[in-house]
Amino acid sequence: MDPKRHGRAEAKAPARPASAPVAPLRRSRARPAPAGRPSDGAPAGRLRLIIENLRPRVDEGRYPAKRALGERIEILADIFTDGHDRISAVLRHRVEGEGAWAETAMEPLANDLWRASFVAQRIGFYEFTVEAWVDRFGSWATELKKKCDAGQDVRSELLEGAATLRAAATRARGVEREWIEQQARLLESDAAPETCVELALGSELAATMTRLADRTEACLHDRVLRVRVDRERARFGAWYEMFPRSAGNDPARGATLREAEARLPEIAAMGCDIVYLPPVHPIGRTHRKGANNALTARPGDTGSPWAIGAREGGHKAVAPELGTLADFEHFVATAREFGLEIALDIAFQCSPDHPYVREHPEWFRHRPDGSIKYAENPPKKYQDIYPFDFECEDWRGLWEELKSVVLFWAARGVEVFRVDNPHTKPFRFWEWLIAEVQREHPGTVFLAEAFTRPKVMKALAKLGFTQSYTYFTWRNTRGELTEYFTELTQTDVRDYMRPNLFANTPDILHEYLQYGGRPAFQIRLALAATLGASYGIYGPAFELCEARAVPGTEEYQDSEKYQVRVWKRDDPAHIRDFITRVNQARRGESGAPVRPAAALPRQRQPPDPVLLQEHTRPHEHRARRGEPRSAPPAGRLGPLAARGAGHPGARAFQVHDVLSDARYPWHGGTNFVRLEPQSMPAHILVVRRRIKTEKDFDYYL
Amino acid sequence: MDPKRHGRAEAKAPARPASAPVAPLRRSRARPAPAGRPSDGAPAGRLRLIIENLRPRVDEGRYPAKRALGERIEILADIFTDGHDRISAVLRHRVEGEGAWAETAMEPLANDLWRASFVAQRIGFYEFTVEAWVDRFGSWATELKKKCDAGQDVRSELLEGAATLRAAATRARGVEREWIEQQARLLESDAAPETCVELALGSELAATMTRLADRTEACLHDRVLRVRVDRERARFGAWYEMFPRSAGNDPARGATLREAEARLPEIAAMGCDIVYLPPVHPIGRTHRKGANNALTARPGDTGSPWAIGAREGGHKAVAPELGTLADFEHFVATAREFGLEIALDIAFQCSPDHPYVREHPEWFRHRPDGSIKYAENPPKKYQDIYPFDFECEDWRGLWEELKSVVLFWAARGVEVFRVDNPHTKPFRFWEWLIAEVQREHPGTVFLAEAFTRPKVMKALAKLGFTQSYTYFTWRNTRGELTEYFTELTQTDVRDYMRPNLFANTPDILHEYLQYGGRPAFQIRLALAATLGASYGIYGPAFELCEARAVPGTEEYQDSEKYQVRVWKRDDPAHIRDFITRVNQARRGESGAPVRPAAALPRQRQPPDPVLLQEHTRPHEHRARRGEPRSAPPAGRLGPLAARGAGHPGARAFQVHDVLSDARYPWHGGTNFVRLEPQSMPAHILVVRRRIKTEKDFDYYL
Repeated sequence: MDPKRHGRAEAKAPARPASAPVAPLRRSRARPAPAGRPSDGAPAGRLRLIIENLRPRVDEGRYPAKRALGERIEILADIFTDGHDRISAVLRHRVEGEGAWAETAMEPLANDLWRASFVAQRIGFYEFTVEAWVDRFGSWATELKKKCDAGQDVRSELLEGAATLRAAATRARGVEREWIEQQARLLESDAAPETCVELALGSELAATMTRLADRTEACLHDRVLRVRVDRERARFGAWYEMFPRSAGNDPARGATLREAEARLPEIAAMGCDIVYLPPVHPIGRTHRKGANNALTARPGDTGSPWAIGAREGGHKAVAPELGTLADFEHFVATAREFGLEIALDIAFQCSPDHPYVREHPEWFRHRPDGSIKYAENPPKKYQDIYPFDFECEDWRGLWEELKSVVLFWAARGVEVFRVDNPHTKPFRFWEWLIAEVQREHPGTVFLAEAFTRPKVMKALAKLGFTQSYTYFTWRNTRGELTEYFTELTQTDVRDYMRPNLFANTPDILHEYLQYGGRPAFQIRLALAATLGASYGIYGPAFELCEARAVPGTEEYQDSEKYQVRVWKRDDPAHIRDFITRVNQARRGESGAPVRPAAALPRQRQPPDPVLLQEHTRPHEHRARRGEPRSAPPAGRLGPLAARGAGHPGARAFQVHDVLSDARYPWHGGTNFVRLEPQSMPAHILVVRRRIKTEKDFDYYL
Repeated sequence: MDPKRHGRAEAKAPARPASAPVAPLRRSRARPAPAGRPSDGAPAGRLRLIIENLRPRVDEGRYPAKRALGERIEILADIFTDGHDRISAVLRHRVEGEGAWAETAMEPLANDLWRASFVAQRIGFYEFTVEAWVDRFGSWATELKKKCDAGQDVRSELLEGAATLRAAATRARGVEREWIEQQARLLESDAAPETCVELALGSELAATMTRLADRTEACLHDRVLRVRVDRERARFGAWYEMFPRSAGNDPARGATLREAEARLPEIAAMGCDIVYLPPVHPIGRTHRKGANNALTARPGDTGSPWAIGAREGGHKAVAPELGTLADFEHFVATAREFGLEIALDIAFQCSPDHPYVREHPEWFRHRPDGSIKYAENPPKKYQDIYPFDFECEDWRGLWEELKSVVLFWAARGVEVFRVDNPHTKPFRFWEWLIAEVQREHPGTVFLAEAFTRPKVMKALAKLGFTQSYTYFTWRNTRGELTEYFTELTQTDVRDYMRPNLFANTPDILHEYLQYGGRPAFQIRLALAATLGASYGIYGPAFELCEARAVPGTEEYQDSEKYQVRVWKRDDPAHIRDFITRVNQARRGESGAPVRPAAALPRQRQPPDPVLLQEHTRPHEHRARRGEPRSAPPAGRLGPLAARGAGHPGARAFQVHDVLSDARYPWHGGTNFVRLEPQSMPAHILVVRRRIKTEKDFDYYL
């Protein structure tokens, strides 16, 4: 107990607590007065710029926006001044708190919008802000040019320019200083005005003057905003969920982790990236649930892996029936050999047999009779689960211990955690925990399994969860999908919430899959894999199109949650080949990589050579997806231009369906498409180089 | 000069300077630990609520939202916690900085959105924030009810409830304390559970427990936001612009202010509220412009009122040809007798003859030859205008002097100022000036005449301008109007920008009016008056449908800006009667008041009994306005339900066109409408009580 107690000194509110300022709220502040400024007071009254709407910005800068390693991060701001003067602006950015600020010139776009960008080269937090100032020389040069163009006498203007140069010279040194003064003398000389104007408007002088700009009255944006940069796998990956105990062939006993390793090559070959395991810890015996969630277990019933903790140990132990800690580490290492990462389940709750219950009764809520309260969602009772009481007096001790659980597995090579029901634990706890873990293990990925109200799910994403489960399983019609993915990919939500689209989970076998047959599984797989940069399947059941549900529910019949299953992996109806092809397309192994909708950065993109076409009605024949809004003629894939693949007037080209390997000659903007649910209910069409025709040869002309 | 120097000590950055925090940026902070809280540290880790998206909020709280006196101000926030607990929330509000906070319970709407409101009863700033906490008793009672409904044994729950009551009793006194303890004993007793549950779920106990809620772990929103409350005229009014010197009948000389008073009764009778005068100050002689903006004036040319300042005085003087300061004050008083307010023009610029030029050469920019720079917008030159140099060393002195100009006229009864070209002076200057003036004269209205880029116009509105000129004159088609007014009335812009829709100005005679004939003037008047709570006309020219422009421009031929005009006010083509009827409708003098679109508060409204229908094509016959998007059949006014006047299935009712006085029997949701440009190109239809039919009588049944 002592080590935990010892830890309490460190357990405090989050490092950047929910209540702490990200930066002082100041719209635009004067830069610290540089040496040489008159000391008669702040120049606030002479600041002339407004810098506003700096972005990406999540909740006024309270949370960082999310980006991925290697991505070009585009920063935008609205910047303007009174009158007609020209302005200059720079993006200032750096790895959070490290070294000097890098400066990148911003470019003006339309309507007072300015832009600059930098490339995220390190995992962690970047910070950025914007500084802008009136460009005296540029303003002068612009006016000079207009007056020259209008044939006006500009002698006086040239003298003004000379004064501007002389002021800049005081900020230069040595040769440069002499050169500028020489230019100033030229502007003042009796040289022909044309010569002077040519000099004044030359690019060499402009570049020098930009560099020497007087920034004593520059405005610095009131906020320093942050971007969280994660590794690529945080953004993009195919997940495969499996219960290791059901990876064997003996229905009489569960498989061990060592045995389950046999599944890894197959999963890797299917093109998956992450293997996610439900909790691997000892399972409680008290109030253990039986098969199909029966209230009482029969002898031999294995219980739910989420009823964590028994006499063999708790959240830092491996269930004896699965093997040892060494076996687990071996499993992780073997997976790595096949290019797979292991994701562990973090379910912060205890079975009544968990060691914490005995050692830390103060971490649980008690009933008036002294017993510990089990989980309830009236009228439902979960007697096999004790939730933690995050409002207990010793919340600091509890926080530290739970953090040590994550660090325990991180130390054993686990960098991905799928967090069970995070919305039933305090927001500030997660914000603290994720920050703490990522400080030691920056590449750690946390996936929030929160199926709850929209704002709660968004809050968890904002406060630090790397990825989020979504409502995807319940969005099945064209309209539902369009509306939901417009929200996820076209609004500010995309700055902080990375959807991970699970097509099914051990808890969710949607009606669409229950009744849609094999085509439904293919369609949902194709949709998940092409709408989401990250997506997942609860694997064996999905591959084999398992559709048997507890009647009237989304629960699987004979759910693996409560019993060992033996899967007929050689069932000819499996869709492994289909999954493999979709994943190959995602990875770019069949040509240009598919760019999933939810992974599109906000900025303009080079034309996307990939068209996606999936069926959302498993029993019908007509094409229904393809363009954002206007319904195309049935069977016709409308405006190709909108997908960037060419314009309606374009000549012939070829599309290659990387799922069926069929190739079609296409022409112009609208082309015929037919989806056949029973054979191939989705197209992923790669636009190939246009086909040569005889007109392309010289002799034709 | 001394008084001005003296003033400099006060001239500083804005009272709430651009660079100052509105409130510390904290997402949610613990309340100051109340007496009795354990002193072992902040409870940040135990705070469980998120309060976000508090609104109305302009630029993260940097600027206040605008509302009007007497308005019910609706406050919204997203509030939620982890898990399933119930929460309570209160709106805290008060006149800024004054006394204790008032608390109003917030009510939950759908999707974690909470609402409360208060009525603005004072001009000035209100401040508000939100506090929320976990409702222990409510959460307990809700679960208790669910368990009872499920027939579960609730003895243990009743004991927990008793503990909650005892804790609350410690926060009560005297009789109440005893009463609560008594209830607690009852819950603990052997009384039948049904009796206890009835007691626990009773409204009396609930009310008491709400009042005694434990708020030691309440979350206070991180910001205190502000609302600026202006008087009603800041929101709603009809403006009439006139040059007093052209109010007479003698083409040989301009009218005086005394003579111009004769126009006031007629303007008041037309239903206008504000008479706006271009600058009334002495006009410079140096480089005076002649008629039609001729570069050199001929003898007798009167010059532009915006070339302010001559040997007779500057911004605090009245031009001798108009009369004396006493005459001006008499004009203001006479206007008031007719229910009219006078708006003065604030044009911070000088003619070369302005006393400032001699007394304060340091307030102007100089050319290398020592002469003062006149205004330019290359290749255009404005030799008759010297702009102030707001970047001069003595900007504090300049700011104070300009403020004294506004206060000078405010002291003479002027409470409305139309500010000329504010976008060519620094933003922070206006923010300071408006705050300073409104501190002494809270009802002062500032109208920004900034015809410039959208973000600049919005910035001026945010920083304090009460009203803003808009692009309305250049929005003439149905599509243009729909798009622009969607932005002004349906987006966050409505929280800070109050459009004042001028149908014409001395600078803008739009093509639509140049070529549209009399119907065009009627149509634009009806649009301005019904789309904007505030609207205006440059009066005599508008009333008389003056359409003669300098060819190829929007400038008036023989513009009053440069010469005295004598208007034929009895011209039979005038549209004074039309204007009068429209204004009567706006004021509710012809039944229910028209609720101009731009004045609609964001919240739900009672059904609006007024339909607006205007023609936007002066030469055509078909009705074109009426519903937001889908084009109705020509001549039919579509879904009436959308306007709140009834549902499509409604029985017969009557609409009364308050412009033509015609009455039409209507029925259901869609009805025939015909607009006849040459006779009456607009309808303002008031829905009257539905007509009785024989079915309404008893004997029919």
